[in-house]
Amino acid sequence: MAEHARTGRRQWLGLAAAFSAALAACKRAAPTATSQRTIGKPVSAYGERSAFETAKRLVQETRFPEAAASLTPLDESCGILTPSALHYERHHSGVPSIDPASHRLLIHGLVDRPTIFTVEDIKRLPSISRIYFLECSGNTPWSLPATATAQQSHGLASCSEWTGVPLSLLLAECGIQKSATWLLAEGADACKMQRSVPVEKALDDILVAWGQNGEALRPEQGYPLRLVVPGWEGNVSVKWLRRIEAVDQPYMTRDETARYTDLMPDGSARIFTFVMDAKSIITYPSAGRKVQRGFCEISGLAWSGRGRVERVEISVDGGRTWRDAALQDPRLDKAFVRFRLPWNWDGADAELQSRATDSTGYVQPARDALVAVRGLNSQYHNNAIRAWKLAANGTVTGA
Amino acid sequence: MAEHARTGRRQWLGLAAAFSAALAACKRAAPTATSQRTIGKPVSAYGERSAFETAKRLVQETRFPEAAASLTPLDESCGILTPSALHYERHHSGVPSIDPASHRLLIHGLVDRPTIFTVEDIKRLPSISRIYFLECSGNTPWSLPATATAQQSHGLASCSEWTGVPLSLLLAECGIQKSATWLLAEGADACKMQRSVPVEKALDDILVAWGQNGEALRPEQGYPLRLVVPGWEGNVSVKWLRRIEAVDQPYMTRDETARYTDLMPDGSARIFTFVMDAKSIITYPSAGRKVQRGFCEISGLAWSGRGRVERVEISVDGGRTWRDAALQDPRLDKAFVRFRLPWNWDGADAELQSRATDSTGYVQPARDALVAVRGLNSQYHNNAIRAWKLAANGTVTGA
Repeated sequence: MAEHARTGRRQWLGLAAAFSAALAACKRAAPTATSQRTIGKPVSAYGERSAFETAKRLVQETRFPEAAASLTPLDESCGILTPSALHYERHHSGVPSIDPASHRLLIHGLVDRPTIFTVEDIKRLPSISRIYFLECSGNTPWSLPATATAQQSHGLASCSEWTGVPLSLLLAECGIQKSATWLLAEGADACKMQRSVPVEKALDDILVAWGQNGEALRPEQGYPLRLVVPGWEGNVSVKWLRRIEAVDQPYMTRDETARYTDLMPDGSARIFTFVMDAKSIITYPSAGRKVQRGFCEISGLAWSGRGRVERVEISVDGGRTWRDAALQDPRLDKAFVRFRLPWNWDGADAELQSRATDSTGYVQPARDALVAVRGLNSQYHNNAIRAWKLAANGTVTGA
Repeated sequence: MAEHARTGRRQWLGLAAAFSAALAACKRAAPTATSQRTIGKPVSAYGERSAFETAKRLVQETRFPEAAASLTPLDESCGILTPSALHYERHHSGVPSIDPASHRLLIHGLVDRPTIFTVEDIKRLPSISRIYFLECSGNTPWSLPATATAQQSHGLASCSEWTGVPLSLLLAECGIQKSATWLLAEGADACKMQRSVPVEKALDDILVAWGQNGEALRPEQGYPLRLVVPGWEGNVSVKWLRRIEAVDQPYMTRDETARYTDLMPDGSARIFTFVMDAKSIITYPSAGRKVQRGFCEISGLAWSGRGRVERVEISVDGGRTWRDAALQDPRLDKAFVRFRLPWNWDGADAELQSRATDSTGYVQPARDALVAVRGLNSQYHNNAIRAWKLAANGTVTGA
């Protein structure tokens, strides 16, 4: 019972009665169960999901579907990984189709040896794999209808195992110069997405990734090469990476002046707000789901761009009292963490919230506290607690 | 440079010269790189891989493709996860198409409350997610042609994040009786695949899984429900799970008498040899790949059904001397572990081997040592070291 021990055995056992309620609907019955009498399908070269499965990314309606986003169905997620097919998207000029044989990565600027790498060159170098979340800085609109699902409110966040070459290694090979303090990263998409990245972060943990979840990057994730900038807003993890220029100051590109700045209440704008702060969302129960009275496991995801999630607290009474949720292993740095709390719902109105604390001690704020500091002018970096209202009839909406 | 520190910074730096050799082919060049000038594809509901990617399962040629296997392309793997689309298959009567709404799991026999569970019932109960390898006991034929790739020799092993309900919880709910020492697990496929499982293991870590890599199980992995029996031979992780009967002795089914026993040199047969012993395989370089002189990162996968991989040693001289490979985090219990060793190939003939040691102290054996004990009558449980011969012309074959 290793698993039970880890997640608090006593807590589970105390809910035995609640389980029985949950299972009251299960048929106590004589030995009959579904079975097949005919031979099934043969083995295959590359599998597909069941036709009965319908989880899908929510495609944002925009004037141009190439400059749009699609959101991960977090409310149907399990575990900490997002299937590549369901990883969120955000593109400014669509998903280019790139032949890896002709793709190149140029590293130039303040380097001793400007170099063009083929994809094969990159893949021959020492690669590492790490499970990291990515989150769009525009995830979670500041104003949401009560009916917004966890997918609609938090679906611009996903988590994958990324494989790539440490950017530090490529920079060392190119002989990056002491005067280089920033890098310009540029994508090969039609808009040439550009972001400035401090060299310090590049020397820490940035990857030039070519693999995702055990195979090549998906086209919409930057195939054949992308930056993965752990814990930072997703747009910095430049996709379809074609060029890195070492420079001595931020490039002040359109993507970091016209976009991706945070307008504050006093009219000034925060710029280069890279880190994604600690955040969490209850994925079950969540808006659009119907809850049955009795046993209900509260479950969700938490993450922090500053490190590891150390604690997730759950309130079922609108924030008056809090209980610690169990955190599932492995709890990885800058990755999704799955949390759970067994709960016996008595059928009365309830308001559910989750609150994450990370390894720096940072605590996810309530919305009011965050708005008091940041105002409501900004589109980005909303990591406030989201509350779900559970009505006596079992329906769930945003509070 | 956190990554470098972890994997042995000095080791990497010592290879700077070798990197330069590897990169000699890279073009030192003026700023030109591929880019797109046209808008790409719009966002989509469920993504697909690039048309340029061709990694696929190797479909075993058999008289009936429904009673066959398909093997994971480990030689093209990265990280520790296997994409669900490439997870190995082994079926006795094909892949059934099951509507989860009509599927049921019956638990009966020596239990106080025989119960039929719907898939929804199972999913409402507390689930946990764990990254585990699965390996077919028939993985790695005892006799292999020199040209056999890592996919052909070791591809009946894969690794996923599985999500499910601890079987112990379901058994407790059904009131399993003290006299129940074994369980019969039965699949809903046409052959009604059946295996006996000790209750002790069920109370330890067996899952009734419904999720894989963040979404529903794939059809060929047992959709909508399967057992996941961590560290044990794959056939015990019964797919399309429809029935569990609590009994007081092993059921001695056809699948555990006619199959899945190990014929020993003295004519006796080992039975219920559940655990998959520690094993490793170098995935790069491996048969079918062409290696360039100079820097070459040796990389591969190791796993153990008894616990965690603690050490992987690599020899490049046919087993005379060994060096420790770096083991990538996270190193999880009964999961694939990625190992790596930077190496500077001088262009001379070389013989590469990897040898895993697990947390029980068990060391992966050489083939001769294993054959001395087990003989060559058995089809199963070959976890011997596999050697790759690297010829001066850069070609790789089995040694």
